[in-house]
Amino acid sequence: MPEQSVIRDAVASYLKAVATGSAADVAALYAEDATLEDPVGSEPVRGRAAITEFYSTLENMRQDVELLALRVAGDSAAFHFRVRTELPDGAAEIEPIDVMTFDEAGRITTMRAFWSPEDVHLAQ
Amino acid sequence: MPEQSVIRDAVASYLKAVATGSAADVAALYAEDATLEDPVGSEPVRGRAAITEFYSTLENMRQDVELLALRVAGDSAAFHFRVRTELPDGAAEIEPIDVMTFDEAGRITTMRAFWSPEDVHLAQ
Repeated sequence: MPEQSVIRDAVASYLKAVATGSAADVAALYAEDATLEDPVGSEPVRGRAAITEFYSTLENMRQDVELLALRVAGDSAAFHFRVRTELPDGAAEIEPIDVMTFDEAGRITTMRAFWSPEDVHLAQ
Repeated sequence: MPEQSVIRDAVASYLKAVATGSAADVAALYAEDATLEDPVGSEPVRGRAAITEFYSTLENMRQDVELLALRVAGDSAAFHFRVRTELPDGAAEIEPIDVMTFDEAGRITTMRAFWSPEDVHLAQ
């Protein structure tokens, strides 16, 4: 089981990569055979190639990311965070709660994002 | 899959029962064969009898509970909340993130609580 500090660093790296990195940068934080379920209830995305494709849709958007709360337990983290995506006419904000598990090296093995469309808010 | 409103109501009922109800009141919100993992990484508690016993340790403590954030997706909810437990010399506060799944009737089928001992803070 990874150390709590390894998990905390991995979450910080993830949020930084989502904000400023490429899709490949984000996907590199995942284990090769990881799964991603975003939002929870949708068909999971499996493997790093498919995960890279998932994040590529966000790659050319300017995003600000802020961690609101992080809890670590066992090999897992649950965290609440804000994503603000700049759009031509304003910005879209959402504050999901994500749950991740990690391998010994701190790579993400599963990611599940809890949010629904009604949680997306438009802001100026 | 339960409606989002059923899940939201179930979370509200849970928090109210934790604050003011008996152990049996809390356990009654769980499905008969539910599992509870609190904290994540510990051995899960299985079935309503064992779940009642789990909550009985908290039954005689005065607890204030406040919902900080709730996200609903699929048959699941993730929520961040504050529990303040009154102690003889002050109070203990913790703000876990819990993840629950629900059956069609809105009963809790699984509960997983993300927190670690270092998240417990003593307050006056």
